[in-house]
Amino acid sequence: MRFAEMTAPELRALSREDTLIIAPIAACEQHSRHLPVFTDSILVGAVADAVERNLPDRVLLLPVLWMGASEHHLPFGGTLTASLPTYELVLMELLAPLLRDGFRRTMYLNGHGGNIDPLRIALRRLDVQFPQAVLTGAAYWELAEAEIAALCEGPRKTMGHACEIETSMIMHLRPDLVRKDLILDDPDPDTGALRSITWARDFGRRTQHGAVGHPEAADAERGRRMLEAIGRKVTVVAEGVLNLPLS
Amino acid sequence: MRFAEMTAPELRALSREDTLIIAPIAACEQHSRHLPVFTDSILVGAVADAVERNLPDRVLLLPVLWMGASEHHLPFGGTLTASLPTYELVLMELLAPLLRDGFRRTMYLNGHGGNIDPLRIALRRLDVQFPQAVLTGAAYWELAEAEIAALCEGPRKTMGHACEIETSMIMHLRPDLVRKDLILDDPDPDTGALRSITWARDFGRRTQHGAVGHPEAADAERGRRMLEAIGRKVTVVAEGVLNLPLS
Amino acid sequence: MRFAEMTAPELRALSREDTLIIAPIAACEQHSRHLPVFTDSILVGAVADAVERNLPDRVLLLPVLWMGASEHHLPFGGTLTASLPTYELVLMELLAPLLRDGFRRTMYLNGHGGNIDPLRIALRRLDVQFPQAVLTGAAYWELAEAEIAALCEGPRKTMGHACEIETSMIMHLRPDLVRKDLILDDPDPDTGALRSITWARDFGRRTQHGAVGHPEAADAERGRRMLEAIGRKVTVVAEGVLNLPLS
Amino acid sequence: MRFAEMTAPELRALSREDTLIIAPIAACEQHSRHLPVFTDSILVGAVADAVERNLPDRVLLLPVLWMGASEHHLPFGGTLTASLPTYELVLMELLAPLLRDGFRRTMYLNGHGGNIDPLRIALRRLDVQFPQAVLTGAAYWELAEAEIAALCEGPRKTMGHACEIETSMIMHLRPDLVRKDLILDDPDPDTGALRSITWARDFGRRTQHGAVGHPEAADAERGRRMLEAIGRKVTVVAEGVLNLPLS
Amino acid sequence: MRFAEMTAPELRALSREDTLIIAPIAACEQHSRHLPVFTDSILVGAVADAVERNLPDRVLLLPVLWMGASEHHLPFGGTLTASLPTYELVLMELLAPLLRDGFRRTMYLNGHGGNIDPLRIALRRLDVQFPQAVLTGAAYWELAEAEIAALCEGPRKTMGHACEIETSMIMHLRPDLVRKDLILDDPDPDTGALRSITWARDFGRRTQHGAVGHPEAADAERGRRMLEAIGRKVTVVAEGVLNLPLS
Amino acid sequence: MRFAEMTAPELRALSREDTLIIAPIAACEQHSRHLPVFTDSILVGAVADAVERNLPDRVLLLPVLWMGASEHHLPFGGTLTASLPTYELVLMELLAPLLRDGFRRTMYLNGHGGNIDPLRIALRRLDVQFPQAVLTGAAYWELAEAEIAALCEGPRKTMGHACEIETSMIMHLRPDLVRKDLILDDPDPDTGALRSITWARDFGRRTQHGAVGHPEAADAERGRRMLEAIGRKVTVVAEGVLNLPLS
Repeated sequence: MRFAEMTAPELRALSREDTLIIAPIAACEQHSRHLPVFTDSILVGAVADAVERNLPDRVLLLPVLWMGASEHHLPFGGTLTASLPTYELVLMELLAPLLRDGFRRTMYLNGHGGNIDPLRIALRRLDVQFPQAVLTGAAYWELAEAEIAALCEGPRKTMGHACEIETSMIMHLRPDLVRKDLILDDPDPDTGALRSITWARDFGRRTQHGAVGHPEAADAERGRRMLEAIGRKVTVVAEGVLNLPLS
Repeated sequence: MRFAEMTAPELRALSREDTLIIAPIAACEQHSRHLPVFTDSILVGAVADAVERNLPDRVLLLPVLWMGASEHHLPFGGTLTASLPTYELVLMELLAPLLRDGFRRTMYLNGHGGNIDPLRIALRRLDVQFPQAVLTGAAYWELAEAEIAALCEGPRKTMGHACEIETSMIMHLRPDLVRKDLILDDPDPDTGALRSITWARDFGRRTQHGAVGHPEAADAERGRRMLEAIGRKVTVVAEGVLNLPLS
Repeated sequence: MRFAEMTAPELRALSREDTLIIAPIAACEQHSRHLPVFTDSILVGAVADAVERNLPDRVLLLPVLWMGASEHHLPFGGTLTASLPTYELVLMELLAPLLRDGFRRTMYLNGHGGNIDPLRIALRRLDVQFPQAVLTGAAYWELAEAEIAALCEGPRKTMGHACEIETSMIMHLRPDLVRKDLILDDPDPDTGALRSITWARDFGRRTQHGAVGHPEAADAERGRRMLEAIGRKVTVVAEGVLNLPLS
Repeated sequence: MRFAEMTAPELRALSREDTLIIAPIAACEQHSRHLPVFTDSILVGAVADAVERNLPDRVLLLPVLWMGASEHHLPFGGTLTASLPTYELVLMELLAPLLRDGFRRTMYLNGHGGNIDPLRIALRRLDVQFPQAVLTGAAYWELAEAEIAALCEGPRKTMGHACEIETSMIMHLRPDLVRKDLILDDPDPDTGALRSITWARDFGRRTQHGAVGHPEAADAERGRRMLEAIGRKVTVVAEGVLNLPLS
Repeated sequence: MRFAEMTAPELRALSREDTLIIAPIAACEQHSRHLPVFTDSILVGAVADAVERNLPDRVLLLPVLWMGASEHHLPFGGTLTASLPTYELVLMELLAPLLRDGFRRTMYLNGHGGNIDPLRIALRRLDVQFPQAVLTGAAYWELAEAEIAALCEGPRKTMGHACEIETSMIMHLRPDLVRKDLILDDPDPDTGALRSITWARDFGRRTQHGAVGHPEAADAERGRRMLEAIGRKVTVVAEGVLNLPLS
Repeated sequence: MRFAEMTAPELRALSREDTLIIAPIAACEQHSRHLPVFTDSILVGAVADAVERNLPDRVLLLPVLWMGASEHHLPFGGTLTASLPTYELVLMELLAPLLRDGFRRTMYLNGHGGNIDPLRIALRRLDVQFPQAVLTGAAYWELAEAEIAALCEGPRKTMGHACEIETSMIMHLRPDLVRKDLILDDPDPDTGALRSITWARDFGRRTQHGAVGHPEAADAERGRRMLEAIGRKVTVVAEGVLNLPLS
């Protein structure tokens, strides 16, 4: 079910217990020289659509909230962003009316790495207010880590930024938006052997052109297969959330 | 130019003086029994697309921000909304990175009546921070008031909610989403002869089914002509903003 | 009834259903070269006093809150102001204790154009908290638009700033505070033919001396008649609010 | 000089170094059974007027900000109040435009006990922003403690609430507003021998009728002499602030 | 009882009516040339420990919250601080979970002058939320003013900063942390004969080396006696709070 | 170097480039039936002390901030906590004065799982303000994951809560505070096979007694070896941060 296309009386009639609200969230931010700034929103929208197609009677899909937490991408321009405190509020208010209305199962389906921290904060803050609900959330690549890794051919097997994975999937979904002649690997960011510590540095200090992770290895057909695998895996997780017992 | 489809280097290359940023903002909220909750977002998106097509080299169109200020529609369900203080911040942060980056001309193109107040507040708060910019905004029906009135056939000639105007235009754009059998005029809201005073009442207390303004008079072909007229008029205003001298 | 002059036990004894709280709100801000900065507060105070005299048993008049939202007048100096977010809170907190105490009918009576936006926001935010109350508000010139226009002799028939209307009424009420030798029309602000769009510009960029609207046409006797007409009309509206059914 | 009665150009012409801004702040809150709720505002206004009359060329007197921090009086009704966080902001924003405009000497002249804490917080927060200014503030009875004590005849020699001191001064200034037949001492609040510790209790738990401090001892003539003495002493302090060297 | 050393089940078992929560709060800020920046935290911790030892079954002692409101000490460096609005929240949130859990008696035991204002604000804001609780607070020197004065030998008998009193007590508790060769009186701050008015000035403008009050008169043995006297007196006050009737 | 024990002039004299500020942060919250609520603070304090002992000239150790983000532990009582928005501010304000003072290298050393999200948010928000600084942070078990795993004998090799790891280390450091007779494994939390998704559930819904991870396997001697290994590894990371080039 697609929230945006329904009427209010139809939405009022839905089961509060047996419906999973999926809220896709993403960003509009620089994606190096070769990908459009809407990359994250296009991708999470495609994943969310797949899940809704797989579970049309049990999933209630909200429209993609494309504005994300992207201040660390501002040095490259081409970036829209909420501040972190505002974004936490936005995420909470995105679901609060539905939770107040009695819905019991929600999932933020995230398509942007910079949203992970505020997503977790929002879940915790909502949990204080709505302890009777099952409140979940993840980036799609956290849910489908193994499936994605299995399809990567470049040296990095996990989601980067404007990387092999994102580039492949946009090549499949919107080839018209990929500047193929500008695909060129950024050097791997130098972390000074400090991998386990969080080091807050915006992308202007971490990369040369705004990318992390080998877009030269991208391929449209593998992008198609990645999307398929991700859609299947997120569907399985959504079914899991639907099957959790309510307290 | 469509912000979402461009790359960061392309966006960095644009003229800061001669480009008009258009930020379409809308809502996802109850629209009576016959229209989808995404009505405002569909309509403002169509208007914004028309303006961008008319001025492709001078307008930079942001993606539609569909989350609006709709708390007064919550009693009917089917409504997503930011709180007013959060929404003011969201509107400001939507443009702030571009203004900090040097863009000089902006227009919020609004498709939801409940956004008018926070839109004005956001403009004033931004003006304190960015006095060098031309900061503008309006609902499309404020800009095309005469054009719309000329095409109405029902008793009300101005924008209501799920009214003749909105229903006609959605009938044209997305006939699949209109529940035609459920189109039935709400009684006109009783304002107790207090027309000139602002009376804060949510839609649950103002209407029976969530509509204001005679959807029975709606017609798809007139909806098409309304959209055309609105697109033309907003284009004229956009050109006016582009021609304002910069200080 | 004048809130300020009563004791707490007298106030506790009032009917919560049949009393209309009137909260006059204004500003202390530049009013061109010829009017005192307290112009808005003097005028709204005079209007409010008239209404209270007309309905002494049913209106409970709060003291004038002179601090308004006037940041857009700061370039000319002589201006005190709250920021917009603070002012929204102030307006809400001004009425909240009375609404919590059970009063059911309230009216912000506004004397400053810059307060209109935050007034509407405050009403909407209060409505979420106090849905059982009749919450209303307007600038006095919104209520008495026709009455004022009928008495104007200059080219502009609607409220400006330090204009024919305000100047006439201050000439009547406080002639000692008018610098008559400095009354000189500002040129009409150039809106670049963009009348229907909101364009956020502070008064330093909109005017030469801080006035909008032809003070040269002012006249004390017409000021007296304006005040009389406004007082009568606001009284009618106040009676209307008192007669609205409570839910 | 009275800010409210001047024009913007006159205010722009003042010396920033040799002018003392006096901002009288008060409250509108229950004052037991015999005094009007505007007592604090009437009194601080009278003191401020006296100081301005004594130093007409060096003092710039703002209008009385009557809305104070009075939540602890709400149990008796008849009370308007800002919340404490909002009131801190209001106090800061009251002076900030003048400090930004270059004024160097300011004094909050306070007439309400509940404002003392937020006044000190506001001064400290302003000091971080405006270290070049001389930022001062006090309740008038803190400045004229000895003068007031010398004129008290009841058992308590310091300011209470609706006490001998306030009642005497209102009897002098506004005898029409005193309900003389209702003057009756509240029992002294029982502090359980815990005088040195701050114990947060609203007035509903501290008093029987909302008063602290022996109004039965009040006398109009002594009220007149108190006001005179206070006005003289605050003038001396104001001169002291005007004579402090600027850094 | 020491909160930090107990387990959750032990804490759950405590009487809500007969237990006094003591929350020691302090600072980490410059203390002139001779005292460590943790002076306030060391001292309030020692006082709090003494009280807990005296009333081990009735006092529940929280760990020392060392972060205080010290922005006015920043000019000398060596200072950590929360902003005032944040510190108010911190103080409230420090007690709120316990008050929500039903505890009825609390005392902030304060060791830093700059915390007095926000402590009072926090008490008042908590009182609005938890009117059923006995909420108290004070700096230890406010409670033991006479006891401290009796032991001072220098010209000042009240708490200053890095003064005779603090220096004596640290000399007793942590002689290893006192730079004895750098003890040198600052000149008394010049208040321009404006003693009764609050004048917001940071310590960089008030003092030469960051001290107020004659550390040259300090003595370790008198420091020991001061601590003893303070501990006894705060114990008496704590017993008083424990004996207050609950409503 | 221990910040708390130094004087302001000593702190002012330190190198801004070659000093690493370490800010240990923790919590005071329920730790099942057998561990004291200060467990996290005791442990991170011990780790931080070790690092400071290893690098006494290059590390500047702040006092442990024991108040953390622990709302999800409130259902078991025995828990103090800041709200998440306040805690973000506290973390930022903890370092901001030092960063404003010119220090270039900082590390939050975290001892509480619930602090991880706000720690990352704080780092990102500080990075916007202080792009010239090297801002880092991690929980000690994120840095020493392999070292800890190698020493675990129970079925779980990663940090839980009141688990084998924490219990072992407290057994070594403060055996007097461990209720050995109450050590009993909680059943492993049932995640419904939803391991990869974040599911916000407070500990009252996730566990029976508030523990996650096999405390029955704890042993004091292994606790000692864990602490040693962690101290060594965090020292290596601290050296790494000290060796990062400054931009």
